[in-house]
Amino acid sequence: MNTFGKRLTLTTFGESHGKAIGCILDGVPAGLKIDEEFIQSQLDRRKPGKSDMETARKEDDKVEILSGVFEGISTGTPIAMVIFNTNQKSRDYDNVKDLFRPGHADFTYYHKYGLRDYRGGGRSSARETAARVAGGAIAMLILKELGVSIESGVYEVDGIQAKELDFEYAKTSKLNALDKAIEPLQEQAVIKAKKEHDSVGGVVLTRALGVPVGLGEPMYYKLDAILAEAMMGINAAKAVEIGEGTNVSHLKGSQNNDAITPDGFKTNRSGGMLGGISNGDEIVVKTYFKPTPSIFKPQDSIDRFNNPQHYKLQGRHDPCVAIRGAVVTEAMMALVLADMSLLHMGKKMEHLKAIYQ
Amino acid sequence: MNTFGKRLTLTTFGESHGKAIGCILDGVPAGLKIDEEFIQSQLDRRKPGKSDMETARKEDDKVEILSGVFEGISTGTPIAMVIFNTNQKSRDYDNVKDLFRPGHADFTYYHKYGLRDYRGGGRSSARETAARVAGGAIAMLILKELGVSIESGVYEVDGIQAKELDFEYAKTSKLNALDKAIEPLQEQAVIKAKKEHDSVGGVVLTRALGVPVGLGEPMYYKLDAILAEAMMGINAAKAVEIGEGTNVSHLKGSQNNDAITPDGFKTNRSGGMLGGISNGDEIVVKTYFKPTPSIFKPQDSIDRFNNPQHYKLQGRHDPCVAIRGAVVTEAMMALVLADMSLLHMGKKMEHLKAIYQ
Amino acid sequence: MNTFGKRLTLTTFGESHGKAIGCILDGVPAGLKIDEEFIQSQLDRRKPGKSDMETARKEDDKVEILSGVFEGISTGTPIAMVIFNTNQKSRDYDNVKDLFRPGHADFTYYHKYGLRDYRGGGRSSARETAARVAGGAIAMLILKELGVSIESGVYEVDGIQAKELDFEYAKTSKLNALDKAIEPLQEQAVIKAKKEHDSVGGVVLTRALGVPVGLGEPMYYKLDAILAEAMMGINAAKAVEIGEGTNVSHLKGSQNNDAITPDGFKTNRSGGMLGGISNGDEIVVKTYFKPTPSIFKPQDSIDRFNNPQHYKLQGRHDPCVAIRGAVVTEAMMALVLADMSLLHMGKKMEHLKAIYQ
Amino acid sequence: MNTFGKRLTLTTFGESHGKAIGCILDGVPAGLKIDEEFIQSQLDRRKPGKSDMETARKEDDKVEILSGVFEGISTGTPIAMVIFNTNQKSRDYDNVKDLFRPGHADFTYYHKYGLRDYRGGGRSSARETAARVAGGAIAMLILKELGVSIESGVYEVDGIQAKELDFEYAKTSKLNALDKAIEPLQEQAVIKAKKEHDSVGGVVLTRALGVPVGLGEPMYYKLDAILAEAMMGINAAKAVEIGEGTNVSHLKGSQNNDAITPDGFKTNRSGGMLGGISNGDEIVVKTYFKPTPSIFKPQDSIDRFNNPQHYKLQGRHDPCVAIRGAVVTEAMMALVLADMSLLHMGKKMEHLKAIYQ
Repeated sequence: MNTFGKRLTLTTFGESHGKAIGCILDGVPAGLKIDEEFIQSQLDRRKPGKSDMETARKEDDKVEILSGVFEGISTGTPIAMVIFNTNQKSRDYDNVKDLFRPGHADFTYYHKYGLRDYRGGGRSSARETAARVAGGAIAMLILKELGVSIESGVYEVDGIQAKELDFEYAKTSKLNALDKAIEPLQEQAVIKAKKEHDSVGGVVLTRALGVPVGLGEPMYYKLDAILAEAMMGINAAKAVEIGEGTNVSHLKGSQNNDAITPDGFKTNRSGGMLGGISNGDEIVVKTYFKPTPSIFKPQDSIDRFNNPQHYKLQGRHDPCVAIRGAVVTEAMMALVLADMSLLHMGKKMEHLKAIYQ
Repeated sequence: MNTFGKRLTLTTFGESHGKAIGCILDGVPAGLKIDEEFIQSQLDRRKPGKSDMETARKEDDKVEILSGVFEGISTGTPIAMVIFNTNQKSRDYDNVKDLFRPGHADFTYYHKYGLRDYRGGGRSSARETAARVAGGAIAMLILKELGVSIESGVYEVDGIQAKELDFEYAKTSKLNALDKAIEPLQEQAVIKAKKEHDSVGGVVLTRALGVPVGLGEPMYYKLDAILAEAMMGINAAKAVEIGEGTNVSHLKGSQNNDAITPDGFKTNRSGGMLGGISNGDEIVVKTYFKPTPSIFKPQDSIDRFNNPQHYKLQGRHDPCVAIRGAVVTEAMMALVLADMSLLHMGKKMEHLKAIYQ
Repeated sequence: MNTFGKRLTLTTFGESHGKAIGCILDGVPAGLKIDEEFIQSQLDRRKPGKSDMETARKEDDKVEILSGVFEGISTGTPIAMVIFNTNQKSRDYDNVKDLFRPGHADFTYYHKYGLRDYRGGGRSSARETAARVAGGAIAMLILKELGVSIESGVYEVDGIQAKELDFEYAKTSKLNALDKAIEPLQEQAVIKAKKEHDSVGGVVLTRALGVPVGLGEPMYYKLDAILAEAMMGINAAKAVEIGEGTNVSHLKGSQNNDAITPDGFKTNRSGGMLGGISNGDEIVVKTYFKPTPSIFKPQDSIDRFNNPQHYKLQGRHDPCVAIRGAVVTEAMMALVLADMSLLHMGKKMEHLKAIYQ
Repeated sequence: MNTFGKRLTLTTFGESHGKAIGCILDGVPAGLKIDEEFIQSQLDRRKPGKSDMETARKEDDKVEILSGVFEGISTGTPIAMVIFNTNQKSRDYDNVKDLFRPGHADFTYYHKYGLRDYRGGGRSSARETAARVAGGAIAMLILKELGVSIESGVYEVDGIQAKELDFEYAKTSKLNALDKAIEPLQEQAVIKAKKEHDSVGGVVLTRALGVPVGLGEPMYYKLDAILAEAMMGINAAKAVEIGEGTNVSHLKGSQNNDAITPDGFKTNRSGGMLGGISNGDEIVVKTYFKPTPSIFKPQDSIDRFNNPQHYKLQGRHDPCVAIRGAVVTEAMMALVLADMSLLHMGKKMEHLKAIYQ
């Protein structure tokens, strides 16, 4: 249950304030050049503490490869990666030890497992997503060899939407913002919420370019379904759209269908897939992140003895998880697409003939 | 890839106009009374041709159980169910044989598999969902024993939203409408689109009552992620929301967090889950269905030889797939929750002791 | 738990005396010519009642394909096959209804599932293997396209071993015997046991020719491990050997190692694999079948109320299950090798490039 | 493909001479006391260099738990364990860099993956089994809570068989020998082979006591089939027997059936299972290990350029892998039985009621 994917499988481990977090990525084809700097650079994009819009927790997030790579090349055996937590004992948890923080998984983990790792959310902390980013980076290296690239950016913060989509700009923006002109307003909203000891929601747009026709495995491993699973499974995600997404509910068929021409699809309302299979167009997914549940205003809750508690959280938290979440959506999309690329092989007899003859 | 679930697994087979469709449901605990009438009644709710808002294709959708049940009780062995297609050769496909219908999976299936079953969409037809409904009905029987029930209804059609949510009413409405007062407007929109040879989108709300705390398996089999997968994998679905869904993007943390009291959660913006685990509240999911791609207006497309084609479809199709889709969302939610109920067992040592001592 | 394989998956259903048995074979590449006569011919080899060394139960074992094949070609969608039981109500079970037959699964099924399908062993009957043979036949069709063929024969019956291995002869022998000269002795042993209301054990040798180097997925889907699983999972199997098998325990390394030459391996003591991966040599597996537990001598047992019972079985049973078991070992080996062929794809980056460029 | 099990899953990583080996054990129920000393003690039993019958490679095999345990108790989240290789650069591989050692996986890995990690066998080295032993130790802790214990011992070396089975003695014997009286002969055979630069095969007997009735999941996750997979998947294993094993081929049904009495089975020829499900008796499995392929006599082989090579290996190797292999069989049996214990839960409706009501 801590494994994602079918042919390219990511198994993660680790808690927010344990010794280490990490992963085993299994199924990487042999013969891939493993660019460790690229992997680290993706982790650097996700790591906390880079701006005043992020948690003040400091982590180097230095990734170490323990296996599966020999002389810089993948060997086809499992690639284990580990990130030791350097900032693991930074504070005292006595005040939250027995408390169920609203909007967090404290309540449900406690009841599911019958005990509680109260150190910063334990396994349910978004810190686990660093392992996804490490694994996703290798998935991107596979995809790159197939001509596929993945990009993301923050589309909306606190209801303020981008008007232009500039994925290049997003790469340099500290907010990962898609629209340079709108970014100051979005940033202002984040800073304001932070000052008010509150948090804001946001929306991330993620896309893949260069995806071949044919990825996705009906009936129960469709590309859209698995992208929805991948994105909704990221901490704080509450909605996922493919292509036109929620807009489809007020469109007519004649408006929503993408006409096909000998040169390709005229429009891309489908978000790059039909019947759960990629159609060669851009893959477009939107993920909605709720406002960070960790706020520093007084809130009502209970402790694990079912006593009411009126309390105020201490600590360090991102006021808008969508910002760093963008990097995680890329990792998840990369894992899905690389997995789907492997799965598609062998769907035609001619594939077998290409390999075995 | 045609199997859904981990402990309770549904494997489906069959094409729109092949001999039969059906499924194997594996993992049903032994000792469950199998109410065949209930299974059939769910299929009857989904079957086509019940009103003028649905396709005119007539199918009895009579389900036959081939195995796994002895003297009316599940034996713990796989339950195979088959539905023979009675209306399988109703028309001539010569006109669409080589055509890629816009908005359909014709194009992607052809490229993925290198050939085409042109009979009414083949495997990609929504006819496959009858097998899900059959399997989902048995999942509901399991859940019923645990005190869990599932309901659904049409929330929005062509942009016209329900104001009241009356799940009881939806059960008797031929549109599966949640709001009796709004239903005539929604029905009008469907009929109008049909007359104009067009189609409309819609939104379905699905909920589960009585779900115990603790269902959902982090990190990669979270309840929200798998519900998203389940719903997005239904034909024509383009967006999925959990709880507040897309609204979270313009809420503050202080607005979105559900306060906890000794008597439970004050609000249910989370949609009944935290950290991917059920919190004991109602599970609430919204699924957005695109307008039926089969419309009877002239459209531009290509054939499989890449020639442009301007054509007009013939045939019988639902003008609004969300209506019958509601029944399918219930089946998918039931399969997910029953699977999660089985998976949760053994997550605490005390579970093992309860069974083995 | 009723699904075998990872990429090519066989899910079976059905009980000995239920309405039907059958399977869904998923993952068959599109574009394979489905030779229905060949599938039926494999079922005919396995079906009961062909000689006086087999049970007198008469079943036509006529297989019907319900899906996944269009115009004689696989479409890449799941292939469902069904065999209706024609002889399902042939006798009265009142005398064995509550009895746990020694050597049978009656005792364990009853305790595992809490109830009992007493009709001829229910799901635990070897009748289920007909579904494996149907699925295995399609796996053979895939393998044939890759130049791989599978053969089997009865090596030993009641301790009487073949001296020559003539797989061609086995195909025509009603005992599936590998050694024409030894066959009469083996047949005599079977007939004698039958007359004495007893049964005999036997050993089947199964091999694959033309297997490419590279099949098998370390660390936990090794070719030898999965073949062992496949064979040991056949009803009545109690031991499995690869290559030299049990002999290795009294060999020296210098005797057991297969020397390698530029033209291949000098010997094949390994049985065609090293490190769980095929080495290009013949795959050789031996499976040991216990004597049929259904004997017609008086035996001691208990009923489900834990009362001692001294009883004599009635009915129709093979006196030596190894004979028909040979056909089942072929099916299992075919399923394993076809699955492994699909799994191997994508283990090198050059595979991806061959498919995607 | 580097994951073993379904509910309790062990995913291993690491190469013989890489930075580290290790594993993620997922699915451990929350609330289990994790006895780290016990885990280490199992690793100590397996680790090399303890006697002159083992390789001289020195490894501390110190295991470190990175996650999943809080305050000494399992939290229900994945348990990652790592063992750093201390002796990783001990020698020069130039002489074997391009050579395919007979009896080893060099040839097949090279052809499967298209490259070669020549450092001591890389991933195919039996060093990987340390990770299994670590995971298996935790499985044993789970089983202990259910009253199940697992034992093993060396039954045969170089054709010299134990006459008495004394599992207690085996625990203290440096050969893990089952028969104190026979042990000196077995030891002599090992030492003799070592002196002659050769190696010997051996047989390990593994058993489980206290196993409840009902473990094993027909049709394709039967207890016998999965034990066969587990044992055959251990490096150098070539045959697996359950209960009477190969003997069944020359027994009559009347000899082989275990009669049932109100107090249990009269005999245990079945090895503790019927129809792939445990019957409450001792689980008994025999595993045959080939003689270590690494011998120090001159041998014929080829290099990866297909040139013939007559060479003599250098290095340090166990002359009889069965000795340390015994500890690995225990780990594998523990993993299988703990997994099966978790899987059995939910097979009856009454299980669900026990947990959810």
